[in-house]
Amino acid sequence: MTSPHRHAHAGTPHQARSVADHVAAVAHLLAPLRSESRTETVPLSQALGRALVHGFLAPVSLPPFANSQMDGYAVNSADMHDDGTEFAVAAPVPAGMRPPALARGTAAPIMTGAMLPDGADAVVPIERAVPDSFPAPGTDARVTLPATAAGTYVRPVGSDVAAGERALAGGTCLGPAQLGLLAALGIPAVEVYRAVRVLLVTTGDEVVEPGQDLPAGKIYDANGTLLEAAMAQAGLDVRRAGISTDDPAELQKLLRSQGADADVIVTTGGVSKGAYEVVRQAMEGQPVEFLHVAMQPGGPQGIGMFDGVPFLGLPGNPVSCLVSFEMFLRPALAAVLGAPALRLPVRARLSHPLTSPQHKHQVRRGNLQPDGTVRLEGGESSHLVRALAGSNALVHVPAGVTELAAGDEVEVWML
Amino acid sequence: MTSPHRHAHAGTPHQARSVADHVAAVAHLLAPLRSESRTETVPLSQALGRALVHGFLAPVSLPPFANSQMDGYAVNSADMHDDGTEFAVAAPVPAGMRPPALARGTAAPIMTGAMLPDGADAVVPIERAVPDSFPAPGTDARVTLPATAAGTYVRPVGSDVAAGERALAGGTCLGPAQLGLLAALGIPAVEVYRAVRVLLVTTGDEVVEPGQDLPAGKIYDANGTLLEAAMAQAGLDVRRAGISTDDPAELQKLLRSQGADADVIVTTGGVSKGAYEVVRQAMEGQPVEFLHVAMQPGGPQGIGMFDGVPFLGLPGNPVSCLVSFEMFLRPALAAVLGAPALRLPVRARLSHPLTSPQHKHQVRRGNLQPDGTVRLEGGESSHLVRALAGSNALVHVPAGVTELAAGDEVEVWML
Repeated sequence: MTSPHRHAHAGTPHQARSVADHVAAVAHLLAPLRSESRTETVPLSQALGRALVHGFLAPVSLPPFANSQMDGYAVNSADMHDDGTEFAVAAPVPAGMRPPALARGTAAPIMTGAMLPDGADAVVPIERAVPDSFPAPGTDARVTLPATAAGTYVRPVGSDVAAGERALAGGTCLGPAQLGLLAALGIPAVEVYRAVRVLLVTTGDEVVEPGQDLPAGKIYDANGTLLEAAMAQAGLDVRRAGISTDDPAELQKLLRSQGADADVIVTTGGVSKGAYEVVRQAMEGQPVEFLHVAMQPGGPQGIGMFDGVPFLGLPGNPVSCLVSFEMFLRPALAAVLGAPALRLPVRARLSHPLTSPQHKHQVRRGNLQPDGTVRLEGGESSHLVRALAGSNALVHVPAGVTELAAGDEVEVWML
Repeated sequence: MTSPHRHAHAGTPHQARSVADHVAAVAHLLAPLRSESRTETVPLSQALGRALVHGFLAPVSLPPFANSQMDGYAVNSADMHDDGTEFAVAAPVPAGMRPPALARGTAAPIMTGAMLPDGADAVVPIERAVPDSFPAPGTDARVTLPATAAGTYVRPVGSDVAAGERALAGGTCLGPAQLGLLAALGIPAVEVYRAVRVLLVTTGDEVVEPGQDLPAGKIYDANGTLLEAAMAQAGLDVRRAGISTDDPAELQKLLRSQGADADVIVTTGGVSKGAYEVVRQAMEGQPVEFLHVAMQPGGPQGIGMFDGVPFLGLPGNPVSCLVSFEMFLRPALAAVLGAPALRLPVRARLSHPLTSPQHKHQVRRGNLQPDGTVRLEGGESSHLVRALAGSNALVHVPAGVTELAAGDEVEVWML
């Protein structure tokens, strides 16, 4: 909190830094995290949500061999006539090994995924065969099959990816599908960037831990829990340092004792314009800038280095904290490291009109509905944490837009 | 894999079970997981992604007291005249405690979030004061303020949530915002359902572990890695049992030795129509049904109980596995337990035309673009894992729809 005297003017909004410029500043601050010294090689089972350091060329083709797309008969299409052809039934193609070559004039029973024998170039589904079920093995059976073009129901070797082709680019964030691709290529472990270590500190004499008594004038700390969860969900390695009082010396001591091995220190609160905000005071003499970003909520921000450790000072309201994480820290880390993944912008139509300040990028909270509309939850105030908890999306109103009507299209980010 | 003789017809699609009916069947199978015996009380920091067992009424109001929305002066609006009023500047409102009552005719400096003194009913922002900065404390200062209506820049007590109101419903999946709300309400720990324990087994003589040699006719196991990651991301507690051969006795032994304490056993492969599919064989004598769901990919499915443990048999292709997880297991668990969260349906316009089988719900993979179009990645075949890895969404083509044109609207689920 702030002692209220010597309070400077709130910055006039058009002098504030743009959202894009502040994302760039945070990315510049965190750029050294993209370092060879911060990589590690982990098995696929531990790589979820991490970013690949190097791109991969496919070491094998997928599929590794031409195989059948159906249960049916492998044939040589050159053996077929337009009006149906009778074949001798060959031995079934075995699963998981190279089958013997197909003799001309024969059709080999083959299951989905099995390797096409040399000499075969098409598969006839069992449903189109006469008879339309497989004979018992070892019997001297014959089958009549309709004319089938070469390539029919065959998955060619390399039709998903050919050996030597680019499989994944460096910086790819590894989700289930990307890890599945690496496994399919036979790669058991990958070099990824280490999880980013965050020291997270809530500040304020008025803030108490959940579970404690709540004296008059005090509030429970929501920021620590909210940001820890958002960061953990994004794959960051968060250490909570609890709540610091408004004594700058205490905050400095806490940051020095717990922050030395952090990749980034994040505080909440104490960054407003007053001369006695605790985070501003604790950062005196350090290369830290306090500024206004042209965003609502989340305008007041601190950025710089504390004792050589990258530092971000977020504002004190819970909604501002989450918006700051999603608007600045997530995109900056995505730009520098490839992970966490960016939020995907989705188009939606407003269910209600809204107004927004001329010179600020407003971030509202809302519920994206299955019909493609988005319903705003709560007002624009940054203290509405229940409204946030009832939302599934952030709704963007860019700077320069002052009002929107019901039905107007907006960009939303799903949380 | 399947021995190819005695192969029955593929089920005609309109005899297959609908997607909705199979979701209901999976939810019915897993319904016993919603049990008091499967709950635990954990601190908020360990509750991310879990579902609340019971709903919460707010134990306190949010905000807990009327407070200022701005840095400025707390006033009694009844003291003000239309053409501006001069006030004596009172002592600043302290942070984090109950301030003394406001004397009539005085204005008290107050910072954002501080408790409004008794007797005050509005806040005038410092920018509108003359002079527009706070005086040094202890000086005998006066300030002129414009007329301001009662309630201006005041956040009333309970304006986010009032004590006694419903804060969160039972079954809510706890993300960062919901955990932040619980913390704001002073709740340090919650009763949630335990993570669902899955035993995951890949089957097939043709499947080898990544990192091993790849003999002709064999493929690397992508299913295990892909499903483990998808399940872990969804908060399930996954144990990999590796790869089982096509020997049903070996698979049974593996399931008995490792699956007894699982909440659900999930296998991949060996569920097609052939008489010798390993999973079908291993389930003989157990109450397990093998059927076709009217979905592409992922049609062949097994469901039932193995030695009293809920069992799901997914098909053998990686794309089918992921689609089965997203279409059946995620919605069923969301319905039974509240977590993981459902995928949110988004409307998008196809960038290219597509065709789809009459009687099947087709699930294509695609990339949702910022302009609201979705580009299909790869074809409909379920072996295209690189195309899956290049996608960010599942694209739904309901049963009954056989073709769609570029520009047509579809439902997509973001991955």
